[in-house]
Amino acid sequence: MADKVLRVGMVGYNFMGKAHSNAWRQVNHFFPDLPAKVELHTLCGRTKDATEKHAGIYGWNRTVNDFQELLDNPDIDIIDITSPNNQHAEMTIRACNAGKAVLCEKPLAMNVAEAEAVVAAAKKNKTINMVCHNYRRAPAIAFAKQMIENGDLGDRFFHFRARYAQDWIVDPEFPLVWRLQKSVAGSGSNGDLAAHLIDVAHFLIGGMKEVCGLMETFVKDRPVLAEVKAGLSATAGKKRGKVTVDDAVSFIGRFKNGAVGNIEATRFATGHKNGMEFEINGNKGSIIFNFEDMNRLKYFSVDDPVGKQGFRDILVSEGVHPYWKAWWPPGHIIGYEHTFIHTVADLITNVVEGKNTHPTFVDGLECQKVLDAVDASVKSRTWEKV
Amino acid sequence: MADKVLRVGMVGYNFMGKAHSNAWRQVNHFFPDLPAKVELHTLCGRTKDATEKHAGIYGWNRTVNDFQELLDNPDIDIIDITSPNNQHAEMTIRACNAGKAVLCEKPLAMNVAEAEAVVAAAKKNKTINMVCHNYRRAPAIAFAKQMIENGDLGDRFFHFRARYAQDWIVDPEFPLVWRLQKSVAGSGSNGDLAAHLIDVAHFLIGGMKEVCGLMETFVKDRPVLAEVKAGLSATAGKKRGKVTVDDAVSFIGRFKNGAVGNIEATRFATGHKNGMEFEINGNKGSIIFNFEDMNRLKYFSVDDPVGKQGFRDILVSEGVHPYWKAWWPPGHIIGYEHTFIHTVADLITNVVEGKNTHPTFVDGLECQKVLDAVDASVKSRTWEKV
Amino acid sequence: MADKVLRVGMVGYNFMGKAHSNAWRQVNHFFPDLPAKVELHTLCGRTKDATEKHAGIYGWNRTVNDFQELLDNPDIDIIDITSPNNQHAEMTIRACNAGKAVLCEKPLAMNVAEAEAVVAAAKKNKTINMVCHNYRRAPAIAFAKQMIENGDLGDRFFHFRARYAQDWIVDPEFPLVWRLQKSVAGSGSNGDLAAHLIDVAHFLIGGMKEVCGLMETFVKDRPVLAEVKAGLSATAGKKRGKVTVDDAVSFIGRFKNGAVGNIEATRFATGHKNGMEFEINGNKGSIIFNFEDMNRLKYFSVDDPVGKQGFRDILVSEGVHPYWKAWWPPGHIIGYEHTFIHTVADLITNVVEGKNTHPTFVDGLECQKVLDAVDASVKSRTWEKV
Amino acid sequence: MADKVLRVGMVGYNFMGKAHSNAWRQVNHFFPDLPAKVELHTLCGRTKDATEKHAGIYGWNRTVNDFQELLDNPDIDIIDITSPNNQHAEMTIRACNAGKAVLCEKPLAMNVAEAEAVVAAAKKNKTINMVCHNYRRAPAIAFAKQMIENGDLGDRFFHFRARYAQDWIVDPEFPLVWRLQKSVAGSGSNGDLAAHLIDVAHFLIGGMKEVCGLMETFVKDRPVLAEVKAGLSATAGKKRGKVTVDDAVSFIGRFKNGAVGNIEATRFATGHKNGMEFEINGNKGSIIFNFEDMNRLKYFSVDDPVGKQGFRDILVSEGVHPYWKAWWPPGHIIGYEHTFIHTVADLITNVVEGKNTHPTFVDGLECQKVLDAVDASVKSRTWEKV
Repeated sequence: MADKVLRVGMVGYNFMGKAHSNAWRQVNHFFPDLPAKVELHTLCGRTKDATEKHAGIYGWNRTVNDFQELLDNPDIDIIDITSPNNQHAEMTIRACNAGKAVLCEKPLAMNVAEAEAVVAAAKKNKTINMVCHNYRRAPAIAFAKQMIENGDLGDRFFHFRARYAQDWIVDPEFPLVWRLQKSVAGSGSNGDLAAHLIDVAHFLIGGMKEVCGLMETFVKDRPVLAEVKAGLSATAGKKRGKVTVDDAVSFIGRFKNGAVGNIEATRFATGHKNGMEFEINGNKGSIIFNFEDMNRLKYFSVDDPVGKQGFRDILVSEGVHPYWKAWWPPGHIIGYEHTFIHTVADLITNVVEGKNTHPTFVDGLECQKVLDAVDASVKSRTWEKV
Repeated sequence: MADKVLRVGMVGYNFMGKAHSNAWRQVNHFFPDLPAKVELHTLCGRTKDATEKHAGIYGWNRTVNDFQELLDNPDIDIIDITSPNNQHAEMTIRACNAGKAVLCEKPLAMNVAEAEAVVAAAKKNKTINMVCHNYRRAPAIAFAKQMIENGDLGDRFFHFRARYAQDWIVDPEFPLVWRLQKSVAGSGSNGDLAAHLIDVAHFLIGGMKEVCGLMETFVKDRPVLAEVKAGLSATAGKKRGKVTVDDAVSFIGRFKNGAVGNIEATRFATGHKNGMEFEINGNKGSIIFNFEDMNRLKYFSVDDPVGKQGFRDILVSEGVHPYWKAWWPPGHIIGYEHTFIHTVADLITNVVEGKNTHPTFVDGLECQKVLDAVDASVKSRTWEKV
Repeated sequence: MADKVLRVGMVGYNFMGKAHSNAWRQVNHFFPDLPAKVELHTLCGRTKDATEKHAGIYGWNRTVNDFQELLDNPDIDIIDITSPNNQHAEMTIRACNAGKAVLCEKPLAMNVAEAEAVVAAAKKNKTINMVCHNYRRAPAIAFAKQMIENGDLGDRFFHFRARYAQDWIVDPEFPLVWRLQKSVAGSGSNGDLAAHLIDVAHFLIGGMKEVCGLMETFVKDRPVLAEVKAGLSATAGKKRGKVTVDDAVSFIGRFKNGAVGNIEATRFATGHKNGMEFEINGNKGSIIFNFEDMNRLKYFSVDDPVGKQGFRDILVSEGVHPYWKAWWPPGHIIGYEHTFIHTVADLITNVVEGKNTHPTFVDGLECQKVLDAVDASVKSRTWEKV
Repeated sequence: MADKVLRVGMVGYNFMGKAHSNAWRQVNHFFPDLPAKVELHTLCGRTKDATEKHAGIYGWNRTVNDFQELLDNPDIDIIDITSPNNQHAEMTIRACNAGKAVLCEKPLAMNVAEAEAVVAAAKKNKTINMVCHNYRRAPAIAFAKQMIENGDLGDRFFHFRARYAQDWIVDPEFPLVWRLQKSVAGSGSNGDLAAHLIDVAHFLIGGMKEVCGLMETFVKDRPVLAEVKAGLSATAGKKRGKVTVDDAVSFIGRFKNGAVGNIEATRFATGHKNGMEFEINGNKGSIIFNFEDMNRLKYFSVDDPVGKQGFRDILVSEGVHPYWKAWWPPGHIIGYEHTFIHTVADLITNVVEGKNTHPTFVDGLECQKVLDAVDASVKSRTWEKV
């Protein structure tokens, strides 16, 4: 293993903090040839006790409770931002200005204006930067990228259709968590789920030109969280609050390369847990992916002999597949968390080599442009340019 | 078997003529308790030789070459229309006026105005009428209807998403057949494929309020058919003609019951042959259907025990399922053509009992209203009321 | 259509009689180029009323109640035998001796001795003969045969594994029908279900050398049918009778070509309706088939590019596939009954051309040899040569 | 996290060493409530350089090159054995005698005699012991166990059928690795793959009474590994060595509870990478599992309403499922390595609480008894008692 050490300071310790911590902790064990070793140097969180507890669980060596302390510490090379969405842009800009390399969990920002400010800060500071669109590094998606670049789907793309289907808030008594509040989350299914689909589309077949969409909030108010926690949610007199984000978004669009897009994201697809699915149809072939079976890629080729054509069920789990040399023998599958490990593996190389690879903040901005255009089209009830 | 005989006169002998002939021929053999026996009385086609040849193959007892002869024959009880789309409305109106019962292959008409004229003719003549939206009588779809009426999906519907995916014209050298010409076909993927999805949506969860869509013609011109037939299509100087219909359509919409819709139909989904798929998400459950596996219905129920929930793969092939008493032991599956047999079985009962059941011409009109609204929205680039 | 007419006399009108009738009735409508037309001349059954009723439903022109009358009628060209298993051999021999062409529903006989007598009779009389192992003519299986002959699986076969899984008698109160009585049925899961697997194995990769198996009758006695019919089955004093056949059979074996076999058939596979599945692994590829999805063939090829290998899901429903020119556009699937239509289509050609194609009575005998060897091995508790 | 520390010494650093190291390293981060923290104290391997290299990659604090040193170190609480199969028994016995808690990778031994000696040693020393049949702790399999204990499959079991299908040695030029040599590996597909199936069967439905099987070595000799490594394998004069283990094993059997078994394991199932599949049919339901989709469990229940029955596709990834509270939101799947983390999590509790839970060395012995009986039956060509 390399002698060089990169020290990471991370803010946030919830779902994404757990996933990122694991990635930093695991990456050198599975990618021993990386040009640097990672130290989980400092975890930052606002609440002292909780931060210390999570630092202990996740394996961080130190804690701070003020984000500025992370930035001020000259030992820290990389700032990793997993705080709530409404803090991403501001923290990222500060980290750029502090001269750190920066990994920001998606979404990069709450809107295009914020995202542009982040991009400007990174540009000004020549920041090594990455936005954590981790799905790009699911081996099956990374392999799809290779296949597309290899021409396996042809030179014309007709369709990109994608669905992100979850069902965790179908019950109207599910409480009003922060993800359902616009002030903190920015948006609902659009920024949380459709963003993943848009980013994968950008990654695989390029940018969108224009969109037209609808949004719906099926359950307009929900039990306020504090009361739920207090066990009061089932009582007649319980307090309810307004849901201020979209439960579902659905839009059609056109890509720069001539493909048409159909994208839907919803938290009301009863029965689906993490059904992030997409399909691309080209003139020479098609691919289908579903994150719930993330080790598989379905591939149809018109170059297969007539009569013997059919979607191949590729178990993307062999040494020839992206990132798989790090793991297990074929068919011994990996899971969700591995996409983060792959992400930080590439970021480490970037930091050492002083380069930026996808998805950069610019990619985060491009994604945000589509999200904002969808939002605008919902309000204008007509097509909006991206 | 019943003594009563119903005599059928059918116009058209291509794909749909073959499927309808089979239905009339088979129906009494599998539904022996129907209140009438069918006679395949007369086949009508413009070309004498071809009509006689097909009558022989399909089992029709007589032929005529003038549609008026079918109408004038007092022995004929039911007129079945499988001619090209642009003749449906006119022929159907004439058949209604002639006092016949009428089965019209979908689409009922080329546009709403035509469809309204058909509905008016049927109303005026008290016609026993049916439009052949045969997919309603795939046992799995008919069973889905029962389940929905039984409340299995709950009392709120969130999503209807559907895809009709074919790939038979991905090759730009595929010739300019009649289905690619607006003057004959009326429309492309919209009227041919999306119509099936819309009709199933109407059948299962009711009508749409408004839509907004896009259409695309990926291949703008194609070899003219006569030259292709003459073996000239591969020559440099070959003549090409303009494709005047949509290769793909994609639209979003809202249903009267509050559900949001996302519907796509395409002939450019490389790898898909007859991928007519839909999913409905309700507050108590979901169903998924794909015509390529038409004997199966996937069903998710939130009433299953926690931890043991999952989409059930129901092989709709048991005596308790709609129309299945007519067929084979469980798991001995049936196919595409059987949907037509079920359709005419119900129509025969209607004719004898003097009643109309779905899908009537009114259902055909309702479908056409959505198709026209999608078309209008493509032109206006905004939402259109249905 | 051809002018020549072949007249069929069929005995039996239950499940198989229904499927065979349909085949004879439909074959010319879908295979108009056959060298003869079929007439459903005479249906034979022991009970006058029931025979007449079924002749009416199935489309037979005449009825008789004595099998000898069928044989004595010089107008009848083909005898089709769908009577209970214990009558197959005797009737088939008589039909051969009467100089008719013969189609015998599987099993050809109750044991090897009987089957050998049938083969001898056919040989002596130069009978055009076929045993109705209809699964050979599921398009996907017929296509698998072509692929294997084409070398798509290579030149070495490692494994043939197959499972025929049904569940219709899991309930111990299901009555003692004839299929559960050795005197009539000959055997249970072995002759009824495993026979299909063995025949397909023979068809696709050749004969077996030796086998070793087990059988089990999970439910030893069941309500006697008469009482069940009289509504007495739920009473405490109900009469039960002994199940004299196997509920399940499972055996291992070796093929002449070096492959090893693993075959199981059961009526106690809760949840499976008609799960006739098999897989063949060769040195260049593999195929997987399941009758519940009979229009699909899964195919893996080691010649696909490394990293892009995977089981292809071939929807065997295109004009290039066996028998498919007769049917519908790609993806418009067919079902169980079509395998019988394909069978009689080929038999008609055989009769006109005076030739025998598979599966002949010799194939029926070869299948019986394996069934008997399995039976012997169960008794001897050791391996038995086929 | 607990203050108590358990120090682990592990021998071996190849495939299993990598998986076990990860388990020890990760367990406290995801199961923070365990009663002890783990220290990866010492890695033992014969080759100094390689051991040190792997210790660095895997996160071990120290290395030794003599197994006795591990045993002699009083700081070490748990000995983890991942050396080649032929060393398992001897090392395990020594570790027991040294008073350590012991985790031994499967197989526990090369044969029953060895396994009995191991069990005796553990008994004599009151060893906290576990054999690493990690598949028991795939959440879907652990959940299947709960379901079976809950009666979800009923109170009678008819069938256990299982297949372990790999294809990594189909190519006859694949070299003669240690797994193909009996002296080191003990056996081939039987001990390596079928052992997993047998253990899962024991876990879920109990022990076997008798078996009868076949084995086959399809490729009798292969390039000797040294020559392959030297790049000589493609030359005409290359040296080949004899394969001394089974490429495939297939056997039938009977369980103590009356179920019949059908089990097959092969390295020649072209197209399958890690297809460890099994199905259990009970009188009230069935389950199906495939390790390549290890987060899913298919479940059929006869208690579902008639007509709405079907195999449910349960995505075993929710907080209510075994071990899942440790991981991610529903549908964010986990993989192969997690089964080891769950194994050591339970072992840690055992060590602290001084108890043994499954699978103990006795379970390893029971598994070995079946393996040996299969082996004996292959030689005797008859049934053998377990």
